[in-house]
Amino acid sequence: MNFATDEFAAVRELFDTMVDADPAYSAQLAVYRDGEKVVDLVGGPESSADSLTGVFSCSKGVAALAFSLLVQDGLIDVDAAVAAYWPEFGGNGKGGILVRELLSHQAGLVGVQGGFAMEEYNDLPAVADRLANMAPMWRPGSGTFGYHALTMGVFLEELCRRVTGERLQDVYNRRIREPYAADMFLGLPESEEPRFRPVLFADAPAPDFLDPHSIAGVSGNVQAGDLLGLPNIRSVRAAGSCSGAGVGSADGLARVYAGAITGLDGLPAYLSPETIATMSQEQVWGLDRVFCDASAFAITFMKSHPRKDFGSAQAFGHDGANAALGYADPLYGVGFGYVPAWSEEGGTAGRAMQLSAAVRRAVLASR
Amino acid sequence: MNFATDEFAAVRELFDTMVDADPAYSAQLAVYRDGEKVVDLVGGPESSADSLTGVFSCSKGVAALAFSLLVQDGLIDVDAAVAAYWPEFGGNGKGGILVRELLSHQAGLVGVQGGFAMEEYNDLPAVADRLANMAPMWRPGSGTFGYHALTMGVFLEELCRRVTGERLQDVYNRRIREPYAADMFLGLPESEEPRFRPVLFADAPAPDFLDPHSIAGVSGNVQAGDLLGLPNIRSVRAAGSCSGAGVGSADGLARVYAGAITGLDGLPAYLSPETIATMSQEQVWGLDRVFCDASAFAITFMKSHPRKDFGSAQAFGHDGANAALGYADPLYGVGFGYVPAWSEEGGTAGRAMQLSAAVRRAVLASR
Amino acid sequence: MNFATDEFAAVRELFDTMVDADPAYSAQLAVYRDGEKVVDLVGGPESSADSLTGVFSCSKGVAALAFSLLVQDGLIDVDAAVAAYWPEFGGNGKGGILVRELLSHQAGLVGVQGGFAMEEYNDLPAVADRLANMAPMWRPGSGTFGYHALTMGVFLEELCRRVTGERLQDVYNRRIREPYAADMFLGLPESEEPRFRPVLFADAPAPDFLDPHSIAGVSGNVQAGDLLGLPNIRSVRAAGSCSGAGVGSADGLARVYAGAITGLDGLPAYLSPETIATMSQEQVWGLDRVFCDASAFAITFMKSHPRKDFGSAQAFGHDGANAALGYADPLYGVGFGYVPAWSEEGGTAGRAMQLSAAVRRAVLASR
Repeated sequence: MNFATDEFAAVRELFDTMVDADPAYSAQLAVYRDGEKVVDLVGGPESSADSLTGVFSCSKGVAALAFSLLVQDGLIDVDAAVAAYWPEFGGNGKGGILVRELLSHQAGLVGVQGGFAMEEYNDLPAVADRLANMAPMWRPGSGTFGYHALTMGVFLEELCRRVTGERLQDVYNRRIREPYAADMFLGLPESEEPRFRPVLFADAPAPDFLDPHSIAGVSGNVQAGDLLGLPNIRSVRAAGSCSGAGVGSADGLARVYAGAITGLDGLPAYLSPETIATMSQEQVWGLDRVFCDASAFAITFMKSHPRKDFGSAQAFGHDGANAALGYADPLYGVGFGYVPAWSEEGGTAGRAMQLSAAVRRAVLASR
Repeated sequence: MNFATDEFAAVRELFDTMVDADPAYSAQLAVYRDGEKVVDLVGGPESSADSLTGVFSCSKGVAALAFSLLVQDGLIDVDAAVAAYWPEFGGNGKGGILVRELLSHQAGLVGVQGGFAMEEYNDLPAVADRLANMAPMWRPGSGTFGYHALTMGVFLEELCRRVTGERLQDVYNRRIREPYAADMFLGLPESEEPRFRPVLFADAPAPDFLDPHSIAGVSGNVQAGDLLGLPNIRSVRAAGSCSGAGVGSADGLARVYAGAITGLDGLPAYLSPETIATMSQEQVWGLDRVFCDASAFAITFMKSHPRKDFGSAQAFGHDGANAALGYADPLYGVGFGYVPAWSEEGGTAGRAMQLSAAVRRAVLASR
Repeated sequence: MNFATDEFAAVRELFDTMVDADPAYSAQLAVYRDGEKVVDLVGGPESSADSLTGVFSCSKGVAALAFSLLVQDGLIDVDAAVAAYWPEFGGNGKGGILVRELLSHQAGLVGVQGGFAMEEYNDLPAVADRLANMAPMWRPGSGTFGYHALTMGVFLEELCRRVTGERLQDVYNRRIREPYAADMFLGLPESEEPRFRPVLFADAPAPDFLDPHSIAGVSGNVQAGDLLGLPNIRSVRAAGSCSGAGVGSADGLARVYAGAITGLDGLPAYLSPETIATMSQEQVWGLDRVFCDASAFAITFMKSHPRKDFGSAQAFGHDGANAALGYADPLYGVGFGYVPAWSEEGGTAGRAMQLSAAVRRAVLASR
């Protein structure tokens, strides 16, 4: 049942306005403040309180939360060379690339020529090996960064495998998803399948030519076709690639982020302030080489900026290709999750950003 | 009385056209060439030949002229670490930040969470201490820069205090303002109050949400309210923060810049070519992290570029939030000052830029 | 006679559409694939199969092909300091600038104050000396780059002279133009003059003020007047400055690029994969300091990006001020040349880019 505390009534009003304005619109929104749920909303014909759907690159942020635990445990030093943990990576002029550079989209390994086949993602060592053998698509250390749409998850997963012998998805399940009871899956179990609703998206208009072998084309793996349909393939969402095959609800997203910074339900925050400071420090800002537009990244996490304005200077999170959004904002004590049923446009004017602004206004007004 | 030499008649015509086109428009314009006054214009109902008003961040440029004397005297090495002069600054990962990086908006200390109260600016050691204890808002050394609207002056002032024991405002008064008889004040004395005219500005339209805790919000200190009214508060303009509380006239601005590069009234230039080269060398160019638009900075001084086109490659200066503008252009031998009564928009299409272009055309035509 | 293989029929159709749509339009287009000519088209009243005209900065790419041979021969190490080959260059804070930095527009020597006179280009040591004595227009090493419109060729030529004692134009003639029978000249011989057609261009509208002493003004050498007329001066095209005075045909451009990567007519590729990797690695990306727009450069060569989208991530080439375009794309095995008779606008929407996209579509469809 829809719920918002009095202090967040304006958030509920904005959400209701969106639902009323468009009969096709469906979405979930959940917000925790200081570990307490303060907003839990669902609307429209295609979403329900317990439905799950694809959250695309929100998966990167969720995976990075699990990866943060490896940093916190001292298993990974983000200032070390990648090759210290993954020696094969060091070839082809990549010996000097640091973990924090690789994980902030600076390595120039946005994909592989010819693209990845879906099945390849099920064989992590093989796909990691293809990437380790590549030459960077720009000179490492030049300050250039560009969105690694489908390889960021491989880096996170392979580094985890190298230092723990375990899948990052398993670390995530054991240390975050299960204890914090989060409906956010990196690998959707068969048992949860009845709750899954396919991602809805309009057929894209016939595109202008996007060279599949350009940096942008390789990053988007365009040879594999439209990415928006991928979570609708059972094998893809079962494998749960950390790059983008996560499945969840708004509440699930909000819980993993709230759990990270404030804890919830009597459980403490699973990340320390020091780990949060390390992982959420902005590493790069400027024109993204893939999108040719402004963006800002911490270690894997997106940072808020004027064209993607989701939080304070301390906020860290990630959006998805469908404009789903999950983030934590330590300054506001907020964990936020938004999951639309139909794929939307993101960015500053998008619904997720408007809802995020309403949440922050409400926190400010209540202080 | 309005004045322009024959060679600058076109500048006068352009200014008159602006005055004629808008009965509310009021401004002062002054230009020195090779140490001689060549343009001295005032128009409109709200400005007079001896009126003074707020020049906002033009103050940064004026303060940087005084700071240049410390560099010239060998008291500050811009390639040294800030912590060499200000040891407390070195904490929280800031030990490696160089003076020239701090003073070109690279340190990620654009303000403090929660904002500054006005009174804080009257206790420099305290406000400097708050900044020294901060963690940078992005990774230092990453090449990111963003406009430090209200903290740049604190850095200049505190570095001066550390190496001289004196206020930068006092250095400025003794070595620049008084000898060069410049109506440009960092701290308006009571005796000059009768000449002060409040900054005029239209009420801004109800803004979209600007998160006060975002990087842009912190830089603008938005929790303290609208900055445009600040110089109208007596205590603010009396304190004369180097970040933005300077009060002056167009002639005052033009004189401090002309004095720096060519001297005037029989006085030699107070900066050497070497000092000018050091202080005016461009340090950063690209998308500003605060404004999400192109900008270019030397050490504190703005550099001219296609979207803020005020001079040759050698020009250095600063504009203000009201579109006031002061700069020196060694290549043209020009010191320039423009002060509008009503707050204007800046940038390439603005009146200050058009007047600057007319000045440069006139110099080129007269050579 | 116009020619396209069946696989490239769509390219011919697009070209014919362009010719049919505008009676004044004239151009040549030539494409080689895997060393075989697959497209050879000419249309409109001002171009013929054997006509030659100015290709402006396409010259930079052609010269960089010849320079690549010096790198391949071990005469130049792109990671060495420029001053290792050209000691006089090291003054004024330029001792640390590397060859690959100088040749990717990072050195801040976009021109000389006051501009170059045309005759100066005929005395290479003198013009090189003027540049060697300059202070950079921004701090070297700051990551800033800006288009060196008229000095890039000087750098290439002077480095060649220093390590070989020979003119780069002579290296080009002996090792590329003559063996690969390319109608692409860096210095048009008197014997070829009958084939030359002047560059056609509309009188530009009266421009807004572009300060001749600004970085953009200096880069464009605006004091020397409109650059578009330069190749029409016999002495300029006879000297064949590598910055922009080359004269050629579309077939000539396509042949030098195809010769570099695949060879043709039974001749092997003249560059090794290692040399291609070194020379075509992207060095800089972001907002160009001169143009205030996105661009990407390898060592002299332009790289394809969303706003100048001419090839795969492996493509390298250069366009000209008239929107002529030459490039090699190792991934597609393509050498491409396009030369319009009337000066056009370049960029993503331009004809050259549309024709390049059609070529790539055709290759993809035929695989």
